[in-house]
Formats: sequence, structure tokens, C-alpha cells
Amino acid sequence: MLHLLDAPVSVNGFVCKNPMEVNADDFFKAANLDKPRVTNKVGSNVTLINVMQIAGLNTLGISIARIDYAPLGQNPPHTHPRATEILTVLEGTLYVGFVTSNQPAPNRNKLLSKVLNKGDVFVFPVGLIHFQFNPNPHQPAVAIAALSSQNPGAITIANAVFGSDPPISDDVLAKAFQVEKNTIDYLQAQFWENNHN
Amino acid sequence: MLHLLDAPVSVNGFVCKNPMEVNADDFFKAANLDKPRVTNKVGSNVTLINVMQIAGLNTLGISIARIDYAPLGQNPPHTHPRATEILTVLEGTLYVGFVTSNQPAPNRNKLLSKVLNKGDVFVFPVGLIHFQFNPNPHQPAVAIAALSSQNPGAITIANAVFGSDPPISDDVLAKAFQVEKNTIDYLQAQFWENNHN
Amino acid sequence: MLHLLDAPVSVNGFVCKNPMEVNADDFFKAANLDKPRVTNKVGSNVTLINVMQIAGLNTLGISIARIDYAPLGQNPPHTHPRATEILTVLEGTLYVGFVTSNQPAPNRNKLLSKVLNKGDVFVFPVGLIHFQFNPNPHQPAVAIAALSSQNPGAITIANAVFGSDPPISDDVLAKAFQVEKNTIDYLQAQFWENNHN
Amino acid sequence: MLHLLDAPVSVNGFVCKNPMEVNADDFFKAANLDKPRVTNKVGSNVTLINVMQIAGLNTLGISIARIDYAPLGQNPPHTHPRATEILTVLEGTLYVGFVTSNQPAPNRNKLLSKVLNKGDVFVFPVGLIHFQFNPNPHQPAVAIAALSSQNPGAITIANAVFGSDPPISDDVLAKAFQVEKNTIDYLQAQFWENNHN
Amino acid sequence: MLHLLDAPVSVNGFVCKNPMEVNADDFFKAANLDKPRVTNKVGSNVTLINVMQIAGLNTLGISIARIDYAPLGQNPPHTHPRATEILTVLEGTLYVGFVTSNQPAPNRNKLLSKVLNKGDVFVFPVGLIHFQFNPNPHQPAVAIAALSSQNPGAITIANAVFGSDPPISDDVLAKAFQVEKNTIDYLQAQFWENNHN
Amino acid sequence: MLHLLDAPVSVNGFVCKNPMEVNADDFFKAANLDKPRVTNKVGSNVTLINVMQIAGLNTLGISIARIDYAPLGQNPPHTHPRATEILTVLEGTLYVGFVTSNQPAPNRNKLLSKVLNKGDVFVFPVGLIHFQFNPNPHQPAVAIAALSSQNPGAITIANAVFGSDPPISDDVLAKAFQVEKNTIDYLQAQFWENNHN
Repeated sequence: MLHLLDAPVSVNGFVCKNPMEVNADDFFKAANLDKPRVTNKVGSNVTLINVMQIAGLNTLGISIARIDYAPLGQNPPHTHPRATEILTVLEGTLYVGFVTSNQPAPNRNKLLSKVLNKGDVFVFPVGLIHFQFNPNPHQPAVAIAALSSQNPGAITIANAVFGSDPPISDDVLAKAFQVEKNTIDYLQAQFWENNHN
Repeated sequence: MLHLLDAPVSVNGFVCKNPMEVNADDFFKAANLDKPRVTNKVGSNVTLINVMQIAGLNTLGISIARIDYAPLGQNPPHTHPRATEILTVLEGTLYVGFVTSNQPAPNRNKLLSKVLNKGDVFVFPVGLIHFQFNPNPHQPAVAIAALSSQNPGAITIANAVFGSDPPISDDVLAKAFQVEKNTIDYLQAQFWENNHN
Repeated sequence: MLHLLDAPVSVNGFVCKNPMEVNADDFFKAANLDKPRVTNKVGSNVTLINVMQIAGLNTLGISIARIDYAPLGQNPPHTHPRATEILTVLEGTLYVGFVTSNQPAPNRNKLLSKVLNKGDVFVFPVGLIHFQFNPNPHQPAVAIAALSSQNPGAITIANAVFGSDPPISDDVLAKAFQVEKNTIDYLQAQFWENNHN
Repeated sequence: MLHLLDAPVSVNGFVCKNPMEVNADDFFKAANLDKPRVTNKVGSNVTLINVMQIAGLNTLGISIARIDYAPLGQNPPHTHPRATEILTVLEGTLYVGFVTSNQPAPNRNKLLSKVLNKGDVFVFPVGLIHFQFNPNPHQPAVAIAALSSQNPGAITIANAVFGSDPPISDDVLAKAFQVEKNTIDYLQAQFWENNHN
Repeated sequence: MLHLLDAPVSVNGFVCKNPMEVNADDFFKAANLDKPRVTNKVGSNVTLINVMQIAGLNTLGISIARIDYAPLGQNPPHTHPRATEILTVLEGTLYVGFVTSNQPAPNRNKLLSKVLNKGDVFVFPVGLIHFQFNPNPHQPAVAIAALSSQNPGAITIANAVFGSDPPISDDVLAKAFQVEKNTIDYLQAQFWENNHN
Repeated sequence: MLHLLDAPVSVNGFVCKNPMEVNADDFFKAANLDKPRVTNKVGSNVTLINVMQIAGLNTLGISIARIDYAPLGQNPPHTHPRATEILTVLEGTLYVGFVTSNQPAPNRNKLLSKVLNKGDVFVFPVGLIHFQFNPNPHQPAVAIAALSSQNPGAITIANAVFGSDPPISDDVLAKAFQVEKNTIDYLQAQFWENNHN
């Protein structure tokens, strides 16, 4: 809460207001987190309230998001490079999971997954690949997720690997994913839509 | 996420499981956060999911809570000694605020307050005294709050000051609060009910 | 000690000098901590030497204070939102204590208190409500307190709760403190003098 | 370096020796980092010296690795959930890169890549997907990489996504990667060999 | 303040008490910091109150010391590997200073020094070599120093370099200090008395 | 990796680029770490690649160095005030060691030393005095060292103690090192050459 105390400054790249002018709006966002969102091609939408939406969050180490899932929609495999996530289901059902790292067997790349119902809570540890999937073909789902950084970042795996700009060499990806280069070329030609807004 | 990687140990006072036996339940709680709670005498109830409920949260720096407010109920002035809080209103309306510290004027003990509606987000910086009040005499309110620690702690001001065990000397409190000792004695004789479960 | 190393910059809101111009005075304060201070209405005075007095403290995580106590004076219940305190009695006697948080019984809001004599040391953990009281009606007391932040902050409970600007709603406070609104109004009408200079 | 100072304990899950018995071997490993390693199916081998090899590293926040690359070999796209990496080329040539996160355009999933020669240094920020590829069809390459954690972790993307145990639902992966389920099934049937030893 | 909250455990190598049994004595030390100490051969004595004296300090990041200086006594050049120090003179006069690191000129190994009188405050940044000297041939001096760690460590330069057990090779030290080996041998034969108790 | 995400700012005293203009060169240095360096008077040269060479390292907590040792050359006793070091021998043989702090006997100022051969790894904990010496009179040696800070600092003991500008009082040093003042004067008259470039 440095900007409450100090002369006008920038911290972590975000401009702090003159503390003489700080007011409640610096800690507030009419974020409409109660409102359903239009989901994207993979059937989800993440509405993240971080330091870019609430300047007063700077240095305070937390942010919050609403996630909407269409029927059969998913928040595809992704990581947060700077945050752990704790998720609570508000509506519907979610099949969720994360994969452990390249540890010694038998824990190498172990999938820990669970079906969550309304009111359940699940934790995705910092930096690990995780996903949520709405297995219900008829009903949407909604979750609130909190993250342990005011700027957690998100890396959707498919988008970062196959949709980067410029593309990663298809020689590299073909060998990494054990497929033909034309499969990689096909993947890189797709439109990789972001679900974080 | 040390307990995924290491030999059986204790970290931060919580026993870590043998990593060979870690499973999804160590990151899960059927917390029923969708269910209304019975509120206490001041008209609120905090259901906190921290490292004591989900062992896998240890060292990961986050927790989450559902807060229920009766009509005209409040989560009375309190602090979290080890966490910032970000709160989202799920149902109803809340009048919320926090008070800045003993800074040089004009920011000394400044109240930053706001009326929040459904979907709004507000931030309470680490260690500052804050409260939420449901101004609606007919409708309850519900919020989800996330905290930047797996063990944030909570100190309800009235309870800690007037309801400690044993009591703080009434000489001290009478002078600190600029009232007669019998007012302090009256306050210390009340039942200070906790709203954190 | 970034400003010793780097180009001119601001860190944590405090302007760092051009490192070519750093000198011993950036790490020094003729603070007169050997001199008794005039105490305030509750009988104390805190002279804090933090990053605002010594620019070189920035990012270094420590500060120091002299505290004067009049006979029967007190440093009233307060918290430091960003620091643990370690206190040493230089002169006189102090009755000191802190109250634990809303933990599960039997540790809920437990008062840990002690009478300290000259040369004794006591620790107040970060964020917990604590106080010092000079029980001697004839002699002043003096302590040196060190805090684990260059900008620890201080929140005097009575001042923040009853003396905020603008005031917290008396509806909220009456219910929180289990008293009549006119008692709250009376309290809010007092002059809440700060003892931190 | 707590185990130099303290009674026998466990910290971060690693047993600390009795400090009376600490010796130079607790800070040493005859790691043979000068010796070429046999590379795996994707043409690389990572020999990481972390807290599991040198107990004295515990709490000290650093580790080091030798990476061998066969001609046309690669260290495939991966992340370190708890560390930044700084890499120096000792032999040969490497094409390296990392992909930024789901940021606002034009920085969304931007590939920052570079061809490195002997003696060059490159940085991969914490949690971001990165890779190294030896473009030379005739000569191996060697690098030394340092990581900002005593237990950085490594997540090979293809292995974690397509080789987890048990597998992630192919419904989820088919939609996430915009391919047919039988392509996912084919991928999940491959042998995903780890290159971290 | 983990041991207030948790099951019995060890953190940072110090055994935490069962939280059901925590009491004020865990945060207290009758340290007699008001009493003069017998100084050693170089004319000083450091009485440090750290986590080994007050178990409740664990994880809280602070400690405090009284330092006595004989007339013409000194606290010889030393560093604290894990803490910044803030020092206040209680009695007498001190000539103090620290030396900056191997930075680019003109700041390379720059001595920042100051003569301190009663009540003055000075800061020694973490890890830098510093000293205090009592220039008065007739009067002792006393200071209180606070350190930003519950276990700051102290390395007296002469003792560590010339008094280590076993000794550092005199070949190494002769070249490092640009003197003959017999000068090193003479130094290594001295008794290097510690002034930290 | 704040400068990838944020508006133009300074963090830790280093100017961050406009994120719209970030490119791979911000994470790259053609450091020629494969090339032997000319060693100084004590027979060594440290080529450190830190945040001053690679701006993208800022906030990321790591740096790397090549160290060249002439036959019988040494990297003389020094400390890093803000980093642990992990060293790997690339060529030749090194006698290395560090000295523990002023701990209770029998660990007071204990020298932990080792002869390292090619491929061996050794750790020097943060803030402790350490050295490396090439015992071979005919062959040079080379090491790669990684440090757990983007700005670790280095303090060569002899240079800081005897070569500071202005000099430390010879009264102080004579007593601290138990030698005559003319020995100190002789030492202070030497040219203390830095081996960090």
C-alpha cells in the first residue's frame, strides 16, 4: 500500500498516485463479476481483476477472476508463472486437474484431478499446468478464482506453443511433440483465440 | 508445493504427507461455499478455507472465504495481520471501508469507504482495520473474499481489545479509549462472539 | 542499498540519490534519541526513525524508535501492519502485552502480558494488537523499540476506530462494540491525539 | 545456511545435518559437469545439481545444470515453475527462445528468440515456456544453465500435456489443441521420455 | 508467529512449542541490557538477543543487541551476512563507518564514516563491512543495535580470515594481503577473541 | 519480468523499456564467456554478467560469471552481500573454501575447504567469506559461477579493509588486526587492484 504513504512514484511499473489524492476508488472496481460473459471458441471466458484494473492492488500480492464455462466448455491447459490459484465453483460442475513436474517416478507428470460441484474449492500450485472442463452438455458453469499475485500472468499452452508470433520453428515443435511437420504446420495455421479479457 | 517433491516433513507447522501418497484430495475441500451460513450476533459469518482445511495450500500464499451477512449485519472492524484481502459481492449490497494508519495529516486515519453492489470488487490492504456492513434491513448479502496468505489470521478489534483472556487492565483501556473504567468493565463483561468458523 | 549501486531512481516511493553523490549523511540522523520527549494525552510519545528520516534505509527492512512514557502513561493498543517489534526497557517499568488472533480455542484472543524491568526485552509479533503501560505513578519510563520494516506503519486502535476522518458509521460501531449509538457518538466526538511523531 | 547454525531440523522437506557435523562435503558434488552425457530421443540431456544433490543448498535459492545437445537435438519447450534461468553456451550453437504470456496485444504470446554462439548468455524469465535447439546437423552443443531456486522444477510441455499419468481426458485436449480426438489418442500413446536426470 | 497457530513443529531449525502451551515467556528475555558488560581484548562486547534467546522471534525477522565499548575500544570490522543494522548511541561517542562494495569507480570501496554522539542513529546496510570505534580515551560508550533478522550472523573479518579453524593456507593469504608469508603466519598465531556473546 | 508487462518504469534503479519495444536483445549478451581473460595482480579475473549487462534480468534474482585463474592465481577472500554462489570448475584445479560466522564453538570461524577438479560443483552461502586458489604452478583454471541475485555485489576483503577511499583509521585497523600501525600504513599504501570487471 505504498502509494498511501509516499510521494508520487512508480512501483512495479504502475504509476502510484499522489498520496494526498488517494481515495476509495483506487481500491475499487465495478467489475460486474455477477454477470455471465460470452465464452470463446473453447467455451470459456476469464475476467481477471488485477493491478491493471485496480491500481491500489500494487505490491499487495493478490487478484481475483470470474470464469465462465459454456456447456462442454473448458479453460484449456495453462499456467500462471507468478501465482498459485484457489478456485471455488459457483454454478455447475467442473472436471479440473493439474500435472506435477518432471519429478522422479512415480510422481513424474502425475495428473491430480477431481470433479468439483457447487461450493467446492480446489488449489492449483504456482507454475503447474492445469485446466477446468465443464462436462455438462446442457448447463454452463461459473467459478471464482483468486491468485497470489497482483499480476499473476497466464500462459495458455496451445496458444503459446502453436500460436506464438512469430511461430516457433516447426522443426523444433515436430520433434518436441513427436509428430510430422505438416501436423505442426496445420496447428500453427489455426486461430488461437485468447480467453483472458 | 514442497510436499509434492520432498521427503515427509513439516513446513510452517503443518505436516506434509509422504509425496508418494499425495493425491488430488490434498488440494480439495468440499467446502459448501454455495450454502448460506447461520450468522452470529453481529450478523455475519466467515467461512475461511485456509491451510488448516486444505493441506496442499501450505507455502502457497493464498486462501479464500465466503462471508454471509444478515440484513443489517456486519463483519465488524478487524484486521488480517498477514494478508491483503480482495472482496467480491455475490449477493446484496455492502457498505465497506478501511482506515489508513497514523500517517502525517491529511492522511492520518482517513476512512476510505464505498457502497458495493453485486459484482463489485474492493481491496483491503494488509494489516489495516476494515469492515463490511449490509445496509439492507430486509435482504442478506454474500461475498467471496480472497486473502494473500495460506494462514492470514483475523483479529476482530472489539473482541481482541475487550474480550481477551485474561482481560487487558481496565486502567489501560479506560485511558486508551477516553472513557470511565466502568464503561470498560461493562464492555469486558459482554460476550464477544467470534464470527470466524 | 540499491541507491548505492544504481542510476538515480525511485524505489518504494522514496527518491534515491544519484549514487555518485551518496554520502554518510544518507545513513545518519541526529535523532536526539537520548532526549526525553513531551508525552501526549495518554502519556506517551513515539519518536520513530524510519525511511522518511533516513533515506538510506530504503529497502533495508528495519527502523528504530524511542518511546517515552509519563508516570501512568501508556502507548495505547495499536498494531504495526508491516512489522514485528522488539522492545527493550531503558528506564522504569512497563506492563506490556499482546492479544492473539481469532484462533480456535483455547488460544482465541489470548492476552500474553508481562511486567518488564530495565534491561528486559519483549517481542510483539507482526500485526497483533499490543500495548505498553507505565504502572509507576511517580517515575517515567523509556524504551527503545526496533521494527522489521523501513516503513512499519502504526495503527492506534481507538484513533482509527473512533477518530477516523470521516467517521465510520455509528450504526456499524454501535453493533460492533455492543453499546448504544450515543456512546459511539460520544467517543467519536473526542479528540484522538496521535502519539507518533 | 540454516543447518550451519541450528539444531538438527528439516527445512523445506530436506533433512538438515547436526551442525556439529557439517563439513565441506555438504556443499560439494563431484558432478562430472565436464563430461558429455548421452542424450535422449529429442537429443538432449539436462544434468541438474539441486538441493537433492547438495544438501547445503537448502534455502539458498540457486542451482546449476549442464545441458548436452546432440546434433539437431533440442531441450523441448518447457517451464520452470519456481525459477528464472540464465544460460551460457560452452560449445556449439543454439537457437533459443521464450514466449510471453497472454498479455494484451501486440505482446500476446510473442516469441523472443536468438541464435547463440559460444560464450553468449541468455535469460529465460520465471515460468515462461522456453526451448533450446541445436541447429547444427554435425556438431553437438553444450550449455551451463543456472536457476534461481534450489528446487526449480521443470515441466516439459509435451510430456505433461500428453504423457501425464493418468492421461488428461482426450475430450479436453482435442478441443484445447483444435485437433481430432484420434490425434490426441495417438499423441498420448507415444513414449514421452524425460531428459532431466 | 507460526508457533502461536500451529501444531508442534520445527521451523528454521528452532523447535516450536505446542501452541496450547505458548505463553508470554516465549516472547520475553530478562536480558539485562541495562548492565555494562566486560569488554574483550579489542575493547568491546556485543550482547545479542536473537532467536536463540527468545524462541518466539522465529520467522519474525528482527533481533536486538547492546554493545559496550571500552575507552578506545572498538567493534572491529565485521559483516552481518543476513541483516541490515540500525544503531543508536546511548552513551559516549563513536566513530563509525562502512565500506561500499567493488562497484565501478568512483564508488569502489568508498568509506562512509561519521562521528556519532549520544542519541544519533546510523545504518549499516546488509552484508557490508562496518565498524564502530570509541575515540574517547577516558569514557566508555554504549549503543543499542537492531538487526533485520532473527538470526543475523556476524563475521569478524580478522577472526574469520586469520583465525579460522583450520587456518586458510598462508600462500593464499600472503598473496591476497600483499604481505610476506611470515606476516601471515604471525597473524595466524595470534589469539582471535570473539566479542559476541 | 515486469518490463514485459508494464508501462515504462524504473524498478530497482534500472530503467525498464517500453514493453511495446521489448525484444530478445533485452535478455541477451554476447558476453564472450568462452574467452580467457587477462588476470590481475593476484592472478584472477571475474567477468560478471548481471543486470547492468542484461537489463531483462531485473527483479529475476540471478546472474552468472566466468572466473579465470592464472597458475597459482586466486580469487582472494571476498563476500557477496546479497547472493549465494554455486561454482563449477571448467578447467584445471581449485582449492576453495569458506569460513563460518562467529557462532558458538566448535563451529566458530570454521574453514570448510575442498580441492575441486574439472566438473566439480561447490556452494558458497550468502554473505560468508570465501576464496578460490589455483594450486597448479603451470596451468590456468576456469570456473563458471552463478549467483542468486541480479545484483549480487562483491566485497574483496583486503581491498575494502585496507584500500578504502578514504582509508579507515589506522588506529582502528591496528587494534583490529593486532599489528603495529606501521604495518597498517604499509598495507594501506599498497595498490589494491580489483579483479571484478
